[in-house]
Amino acid sequence: MPSAAAEPLTPERILETTEEVLRRFGPTKATVVDVARALGVSHGSVYRHFPSKAALREAVTDRWLAKSVVMLEGIASAPGEAAPSKLESWLEALFEAKRHKAGDDPELFATYTVLLAENSGVVDTHLTELIDQLTRIIAEGVAAGTLAAPDVPAAARAVFDATGRFHDPQYVAEWFSPTITTEFEAVVALVIRGLRA
Amino acid sequence: MPSAAAEPLTPERILETTEEVLRRFGPTKATVVDVARALGVSHGSVYRHFPSKAALREAVTDRWLAKSVVMLEGIASAPGEAAPSKLESWLEALFEAKRHKAGDDPELFATYTVLLAENSGVVDTHLTELIDQLTRIIAEGVAAGTLAAPDVPAAARAVFDATGRFHDPQYVAEWFSPTITTEFEAVVALVIRGLRA
Repeated sequence: MPSAAAEPLTPERILETTEEVLRRFGPTKATVVDVARALGVSHGSVYRHFPSKAALREAVTDRWLAKSVVMLEGIASAPGEAAPSKLESWLEALFEAKRHKAGDDPELFATYTVLLAENSGVVDTHLTELIDQLTRIIAEGVAAGTLAAPDVPAAARAVFDATGRFHDPQYVAEWFSPTITTEFEAVVALVIRGLRA
Repeated sequence: MPSAAAEPLTPERILETTEEVLRRFGPTKATVVDVARALGVSHGSVYRHFPSKAALREAVTDRWLAKSVVMLEGIASAPGEAAPSKLESWLEALFEAKRHKAGDDPELFATYTVLLAENSGVVDTHLTELIDQLTRIIAEGVAAGTLAAPDVPAAARAVFDATGRFHDPQYVAEWFSPTITTEFEAVVALVIRGLRA
């Protein structure tokens, strides 16, 4: 593929192609050689950016998770919206993002579920980022007097845990049940009521 | 085993032995013939009580789940305790029961996790029974003016979903983390505050 090889070989291009290769071959069969072949470069060129297959898989997992973090950060840091309604928007956006990822491309979602299990460090960092966003939203509400929490980071963690059914990929099979939206709304209402000042 | 065979062959004895056989051989290998052999009876005698291997596996799963339902019913129907504290006791007892089952005999717990996956009808009935108990506790609180919920069964379901991390066997690996009790208490406090009148 000379035209592909003519483009500069950036980490982003490698990761995009890695996702493509993972989708095509599945997480157990995909190799660095497959990625290099799809890019029309030597596997040495790929290794110059990612020193091992494990590093490449970790980076592609991180990239996938980072997309929702960036989108949710937009909600968390938006000025103007009152904390209780911002909290609701944030939880809705998280659930929607997960449902879309799972529904639009179930095979890729299943592939990433395998990658998540083997990159628990990346997952832990991701969860910390999300809980940090929740912490900032709740702290805003406490400062404005709309929310109450004696220990804001613990409350953020509790909100995250209480809504796990709607973002933990273990529950993917339930996200498309006819009653899931009602169930989601009931949990969100309960949790927000539990934080009201 | 003539002494064993001398006892009357009750369904309860068959189920007890089935659990023992499942523990010993694992859920994929255990057969009705193994159960009959352990009881010192013919497999025909077992089939007179349970018409198929599937029926036997379903009954043993039901028996395992029923134990916690009976214990929790004691809390749900106890007179005198105010609903908010009864709700807390009930959620604590559920988590403790699950943790005990998982911690005391991890292999048997793993075996039952396999059985739960293949007996979703039994599991659904079990979950309905637990949510019914929660519904009665919340209804009591609403009647006494200590809890508020516009839709009591929906609130019960939301409480059950919000505490899933502490009773859904998918999370068994997290039940023995050093921070799990703090996390559990934070979610329970959040949920009960969300229901306070």
